[in-house]
Amino acid sequence: MSYLSPTTKSSFSGHWGLEDIVAALSQTPADQRPHQNLSDHFYPLPAREILTSIVHNLRAALFPRHFGDPELSDETTHYFVGNTLDKTLNLLKEQIQRELWLQQQYQDGSEHSEASINQLATDLTQQFAKTLPGIKFILDSDVNAAYLGDPAAQSTSEVLFCYPGIAAITFHRLAHALYRLDLPLLARIVAEVSHSETGIDIHPGATIGRSFFIDHGTGVVIGETCVIGDRVRIYQAVTLGAKSFPRDETGALIKGQARHPVIEDDVVIYSGATILGRITIGKGSTIGGNVWLTKDVPPGSFISQARIRSDNFENGGGI
Amino acid sequence: MSYLSPTTKSSFSGHWGLEDIVAALSQTPADQRPHQNLSDHFYPLPAREILTSIVHNLRAALFPRHFGDPELSDETTHYFVGNTLDKTLNLLKEQIQRELWLQQQYQDGSEHSEASINQLATDLTQQFAKTLPGIKFILDSDVNAAYLGDPAAQSTSEVLFCYPGIAAITFHRLAHALYRLDLPLLARIVAEVSHSETGIDIHPGATIGRSFFIDHGTGVVIGETCVIGDRVRIYQAVTLGAKSFPRDETGALIKGQARHPVIEDDVVIYSGATILGRITIGKGSTIGGNVWLTKDVPPGSFISQARIRSDNFENGGGI
Amino acid sequence: MSYLSPTTKSSFSGHWGLEDIVAALSQTPADQRPHQNLSDHFYPLPAREILTSIVHNLRAALFPRHFGDPELSDETTHYFVGNTLDKTLNLLKEQIQRELWLQQQYQDGSEHSEASINQLATDLTQQFAKTLPGIKFILDSDVNAAYLGDPAAQSTSEVLFCYPGIAAITFHRLAHALYRLDLPLLARIVAEVSHSETGIDIHPGATIGRSFFIDHGTGVVIGETCVIGDRVRIYQAVTLGAKSFPRDETGALIKGQARHPVIEDDVVIYSGATILGRITIGKGSTIGGNVWLTKDVPPGSFISQARIRSDNFENGGGI
Amino acid sequence: MSYLSPTTKSSFSGHWGLEDIVAALSQTPADQRPHQNLSDHFYPLPAREILTSIVHNLRAALFPRHFGDPELSDETTHYFVGNTLDKTLNLLKEQIQRELWLQQQYQDGSEHSEASINQLATDLTQQFAKTLPGIKFILDSDVNAAYLGDPAAQSTSEVLFCYPGIAAITFHRLAHALYRLDLPLLARIVAEVSHSETGIDIHPGATIGRSFFIDHGTGVVIGETCVIGDRVRIYQAVTLGAKSFPRDETGALIKGQARHPVIEDDVVIYSGATILGRITIGKGSTIGGNVWLTKDVPPGSFISQARIRSDNFENGGGI
Amino acid sequence: MSYLSPTTKSSFSGHWGLEDIVAALSQTPADQRPHQNLSDHFYPLPAREILTSIVHNLRAALFPRHFGDPELSDETTHYFVGNTLDKTLNLLKEQIQRELWLQQQYQDGSEHSEASINQLATDLTQQFAKTLPGIKFILDSDVNAAYLGDPAAQSTSEVLFCYPGIAAITFHRLAHALYRLDLPLLARIVAEVSHSETGIDIHPGATIGRSFFIDHGTGVVIGETCVIGDRVRIYQAVTLGAKSFPRDETGALIKGQARHPVIEDDVVIYSGATILGRITIGKGSTIGGNVWLTKDVPPGSFISQARIRSDNFENGGGI
Amino acid sequence: MSYLSPTTKSSFSGHWGLEDIVAALSQTPADQRPHQNLSDHFYPLPAREILTSIVHNLRAALFPRHFGDPELSDETTHYFVGNTLDKTLNLLKEQIQRELWLQQQYQDGSEHSEASINQLATDLTQQFAKTLPGIKFILDSDVNAAYLGDPAAQSTSEVLFCYPGIAAITFHRLAHALYRLDLPLLARIVAEVSHSETGIDIHPGATIGRSFFIDHGTGVVIGETCVIGDRVRIYQAVTLGAKSFPRDETGALIKGQARHPVIEDDVVIYSGATILGRITIGKGSTIGGNVWLTKDVPPGSFISQARIRSDNFENGGGI
Repeated sequence: MSYLSPTTKSSFSGHWGLEDIVAALSQTPADQRPHQNLSDHFYPLPAREILTSIVHNLRAALFPRHFGDPELSDETTHYFVGNTLDKTLNLLKEQIQRELWLQQQYQDGSEHSEASINQLATDLTQQFAKTLPGIKFILDSDVNAAYLGDPAAQSTSEVLFCYPGIAAITFHRLAHALYRLDLPLLARIVAEVSHSETGIDIHPGATIGRSFFIDHGTGVVIGETCVIGDRVRIYQAVTLGAKSFPRDETGALIKGQARHPVIEDDVVIYSGATILGRITIGKGSTIGGNVWLTKDVPPGSFISQARIRSDNFENGGGI
Repeated sequence: MSYLSPTTKSSFSGHWGLEDIVAALSQTPADQRPHQNLSDHFYPLPAREILTSIVHNLRAALFPRHFGDPELSDETTHYFVGNTLDKTLNLLKEQIQRELWLQQQYQDGSEHSEASINQLATDLTQQFAKTLPGIKFILDSDVNAAYLGDPAAQSTSEVLFCYPGIAAITFHRLAHALYRLDLPLLARIVAEVSHSETGIDIHPGATIGRSFFIDHGTGVVIGETCVIGDRVRIYQAVTLGAKSFPRDETGALIKGQARHPVIEDDVVIYSGATILGRITIGKGSTIGGNVWLTKDVPPGSFISQARIRSDNFENGGGI
Repeated sequence: MSYLSPTTKSSFSGHWGLEDIVAALSQTPADQRPHQNLSDHFYPLPAREILTSIVHNLRAALFPRHFGDPELSDETTHYFVGNTLDKTLNLLKEQIQRELWLQQQYQDGSEHSEASINQLATDLTQQFAKTLPGIKFILDSDVNAAYLGDPAAQSTSEVLFCYPGIAAITFHRLAHALYRLDLPLLARIVAEVSHSETGIDIHPGATIGRSFFIDHGTGVVIGETCVIGDRVRIYQAVTLGAKSFPRDETGALIKGQARHPVIEDDVVIYSGATILGRITIGKGSTIGGNVWLTKDVPPGSFISQARIRSDNFENGGGI
Repeated sequence: MSYLSPTTKSSFSGHWGLEDIVAALSQTPADQRPHQNLSDHFYPLPAREILTSIVHNLRAALFPRHFGDPELSDETTHYFVGNTLDKTLNLLKEQIQRELWLQQQYQDGSEHSEASINQLATDLTQQFAKTLPGIKFILDSDVNAAYLGDPAAQSTSEVLFCYPGIAAITFHRLAHALYRLDLPLLARIVAEVSHSETGIDIHPGATIGRSFFIDHGTGVVIGETCVIGDRVRIYQAVTLGAKSFPRDETGALIKGQARHPVIEDDVVIYSGATILGRITIGKGSTIGGNVWLTKDVPPGSFISQARIRSDNFENGGGI
Repeated sequence: MSYLSPTTKSSFSGHWGLEDIVAALSQTPADQRPHQNLSDHFYPLPAREILTSIVHNLRAALFPRHFGDPELSDETTHYFVGNTLDKTLNLLKEQIQRELWLQQQYQDGSEHSEASINQLATDLTQQFAKTLPGIKFILDSDVNAAYLGDPAAQSTSEVLFCYPGIAAITFHRLAHALYRLDLPLLARIVAEVSHSETGIDIHPGATIGRSFFIDHGTGVVIGETCVIGDRVRIYQAVTLGAKSFPRDETGALIKGQARHPVIEDDVVIYSGATILGRITIGKGSTIGGNVWLTKDVPPGSFISQARIRSDNFENGGGI
Repeated sequence: MSYLSPTTKSSFSGHWGLEDIVAALSQTPADQRPHQNLSDHFYPLPAREILTSIVHNLRAALFPRHFGDPELSDETTHYFVGNTLDKTLNLLKEQIQRELWLQQQYQDGSEHSEASINQLATDLTQQFAKTLPGIKFILDSDVNAAYLGDPAAQSTSEVLFCYPGIAAITFHRLAHALYRLDLPLLARIVAEVSHSETGIDIHPGATIGRSFFIDHGTGVVIGETCVIGDRVRIYQAVTLGAKSFPRDETGALIKGQARHPVIEDDVVIYSGATILGRITIGKGSTIGGNVWLTKDVPPGSFISQARIRSDNFENGGGI
């Protein structure tokens, strides 16, 4: 084989000098470890990627022809739903088990038997599964709210396929069910999967009534202790946030207090409005775009932004 | 095999009690079905996942080396483009057929032959294909607008790879072509694929001129009946929306009316501006950040936000 | 085989008339080509999809149990990290090579040997690899900042899995390392991968200190020449932007000037605040929600929005 | 950017000179086209890859816990089976349609309506589906035959997982059902999928009774017109072939004649035996290894190879 | 939308009539269930697909640059090996657990705790892992035997990539290790994965010495109780089988008896030879092609087929 | 969180004790390394998986509607072919480069520049591409030979989809082209990909004329120096092998000598025939099943196996 005449040497592959880099990256800092020293035990963490599959599969089981298989017929839908739920609940049980392990490590340092955690995970998965028909029922009301409330919507199929607000409320209702089963980490992961896909950030703790509709949605933030009634409509970039974080006399944050707004039934909140603190927006009120609200509003109110800026136009004026 | 000494029983797998849950989830509520009772017929729905592939493939055919295959050469680009279009148009035809079936079910209850729908889907796909060179031509103007308009852009490759505004306008121009072929559901699905990836929400009905540029883009909303001229530039969180929804004397929403702004040529709109209603922003105007506008603006205007807040600084002051 | 009785003809597949369409789409406009006429040479472009894998893999190497493999143990983590880095650095070197080719084409038209570009790409990859331990170290401070700063966070695992701000700062620190190695295109692509996933838009040029925390995050924009100190906290929809683009006497944009804010240590900026221009926000200041700022602020300031609008409530009033 | 000092030119990518090569490869020789000139019609061919999926899915529906999902329980098996069948029958119908198109082109040149072919494909798919319970029933007898007949088999699970003969007879029974529906091309493709995976080559036309067992199996060939009774056992490298191909007076091959052996009930055929022509091996016979048989054998026979060779041993002898 | 004029009805999708078919396929016949009635327990079966991955991964760990990642360097090989082993042993442990469950069900009906099976599976996985260095060592001798024994082999890389005999012995040595850990089902599945890929059928029970070489290999069968010495060479279609299955006085098969040949060191067996029963082929013997052997052969023998057939040539003669 | 009552400890994950195992497996034995000590250089090996893709892609380019995309039309086939070739030749060039590196290491120890190897790989890829039209032409003759020669074949589509002999000769003609370009390792890998899929083992060095047809095929072996004329037909389990390996006076194997049969035009060889050594089977001869041949055969011969065994039948006789 005389193809090649030798010329100059040339090294092919870099020597990355990995040893030190690997050593540095393979350390977990002490303050990212659980508080207890569980030196000879090890439990796997939940996996966001698996939870992403789980909630997409659950959505497929809730709306089989839209998010499962568009070729399903009445004859075959229940096979799809049953098979999808079976696989998905098995996956979910494993993730629940992982959160339970993690809770145990962080919270009391005691170690429970795998069998008892296994059993508990099974129980919680069963409880979760039982909430699905109710979630389906209330999501149908959300779909109808969007269909009836938006002049542009031409079919409920369009609503299901195209409204990020419907995606967000679907994922939220699943996340909220996990949250109520004392699985806050799984619930938060689901909420962030939704946030990443829709731009809508709803904390899984928020309580939201039926026929809820978010239009456009990018930038919406809804906090953990929000309570939202029925038939509420919200536009993009609305914030339902906390005004401040109460601290105790030592300066430590006090956790778990109600600190986000209560939105009563039939309220509409236009884009960019910011509503902060444990205030109540009374039934049937309308909050205008970009309004900044930190006080209670009685039922039937109609709140708009100050007019000042629209008087300020000057043709040809500059900044 | 004597490995195992019998101890206690322990059930392995949960009994999910699926029967009732599956029955509940497999029902489609009556108001989510088409209006007609088409008991012995069944047509598959469009699939968002397939449309996502379709528009990514079309973008690859429009910019083959950037979104198709970076190793294409002048010799081989047309093979890639032709092969990609062939596969993609076949997929698109199938989706068009599905929207036509759905339209038929919702609209008049009559049932057309599959052959006629098949033929119509083929015709519409051909018409769509013929718009692609024009879309390519105008997208090239958008790319140049971004390249010339942003001091940070160092090459048109950077513009194509890195500007969510370019992704959004690419997908919009494809969605708009579908919209003009009376395929509003496919068009909306494409628009939402774009919204989810870019944070930019452009209704497929919006008419947008050439050399259009959105910078940053998160939170931009552009409504269905917007008309935007040439060389318009828009920053993040700008809303071009409707002020209100007109209703007829019965209180029903009146659909299809022009209700979003007209933006003339050479307008610049800075971040966070909200422009609502069928107003006209005159040629060459500049709209400052966070401005709230609901009235016409003559050509050449320079609109800025009220100065008030910048006078309000108080060192050490609180909320 | 007598199954079929001949009936009517029906054509199966559309004739897409691809030839002209393909010809039109396969052209690259002259102004999207590099300036030099390099007729008989061809270099592949970088690929955003590969860079997406690269940064996800690097994140997996930085936080192996959270983003790599949740079943890793102390015994096996370093194998995972080493193997992941090896594969990823090989991929990165190839992408660096492609950016170097592109730079050469755009910048001076001279053509360097493949061997020298190959060597340079190897060197830059090695330099990049060496920054990873430092990035890991500072990211650990970011994770702690989030964990300590948010009353809702229950574990550092929750912070890593659920905070888009942590995803954004992770990708930013990687993008910034590329930016400092004079690889601006790769850096920008990484930044846009992050923007698309998190809704947070940080230019890779921005300099950001340790213990940085963005909460919620959707709509945040941080410009190229920003300088941000340690322990800074930022909420959703905050803009740290340029006020205007300085032009020289010929009207051409002047590039590369410092034009974005300097945020000193321990500053908090609440949601929706807009801070524009090369101004300085003094150490320890708090900027309230929706504030619009274009002037320096001394250390320890507490800036809030004008109160006007909250005085404007009128029950039952209208827009 | 001064990284690179210009040195020598070096072309990156080959010019493959594809145009002529592509032109040559894109031609279909006339004798590989259907006989009729169907210039303005086009029908897609069946796809072996899809048929491979179809038969694997059907096997999963026939043995759900072994080839479908090992985690299925009694509660969930029917969901899996129903969902798998639904998807698979849809795929199969499409492939049947393609074979029908091809038959039409090759056989009479007439062109039938798509609707009639569509309907016929649906009918044939339904007929095929109805054969599945019977196939399951007889395959259970095959599994038992293997379990009882091989001293090494320790469970029916082992038989299902590990015996290529069970894979081959499973695929054969499916292929034979297609063959009997006058779909010889699909049937042959399925048979070759099986041949490739198992090394066992059974023509789909062969008629095979229950409790059939092939051990080891590599190199077995069973011809189209074979008729095999119940409880027959066959070892590796057995050929049940044709002795010669009868020709008519013009020298043309006469097709479709019975030309392969009839193997009656309870016959055992050891490895390497070659049985050629339309002969009958009587009930209960045993055919020894490497025997070459071209004549009928009465029931109860015990045929062995000539002993000659075993007399021929010479220690230290050579070839 | 007036595209469609109503014509004739045409049903879209078949009604497959799945209910009865699904019911029939979802039954497991009683004789395929374990003997015990374990009505309220359920354990998943092993999965052949997972075992296929496992043995391919193990081969990659044994020969990292050939079957793992061709770009590994001396610096990075151990990361790849460690990471691959970690993932693979986790997978293997799960499969071992499943075989243990199945053994328990079939064998004694007693039910052991999950924890004890879990622990046992861990122990067996550790024992298996410890055999890997020895397997690597002996496989290196097999590779050398092929390289030195075949005049066509030009490098050990060619041997590793191209010799099905090397693939078969690699998989066999892994299967044999499982077999010796009393995991016969996993062992058999691995053996059949190998059989399907190589056409070489080696029972996992066979004991095979070092420097073993099979050339070409298709059709080779090696039985469960074979004992093969060092430096043995075998060609395609060789059978090392049982002559008959001994039965006890009741006619039942007697299991587990030594019934396959003993092949001593340095034996060569040419293609198509059939060696049956518990006979011994003495050290250094050569067995010619197509020989049929059922008696012991002393060391140093040279056995060839009878010459008869080569005397039978007749020009122009016929069958 | 009071779900869990602490019970007993239970370790989760095994400690695999990987360190020593990894160390043992990460060593490459000295005799598997190239002969030269090239300590500071490293080149990646070819990858069988990539070559598998390459030859499947090439087959798709040779028969686009059968192995590429069944929905291709006359309008679109050339796009598919061109695009497939482009991608595939790029992949092939990389693999060629790797074989060249390996050759250099094994053969002379000199080290050539990467640029020269790169150039050579490009040249060889171009030469290979130019052989494709000729390969297509001769493969068309093979397809016709199968179609005309088998009474069962009903269309050339059936031949292409279902005949392992066609798959084998397709892959062989590609492997032979690589072999003739002095790329023996790539050629052998391709041959073994074919062997594994079809059970037919053809050494890439074999020279095979047009209209070649192998029926059934399992177990066929064709040696390196075989020369086969036109219109030859071969059945399953035929061996065209070497009789012995000539050695020089030192006992070393003499490589490269012609040692396999010459099969002249129009020969038919029935199943199981073994033909060994550099003998010639004269034009038009027929070799019967299971014949063992080691001497020349004149043209027109009709060779059959001895009749002895068929006289040996004894009803009821035993072994």
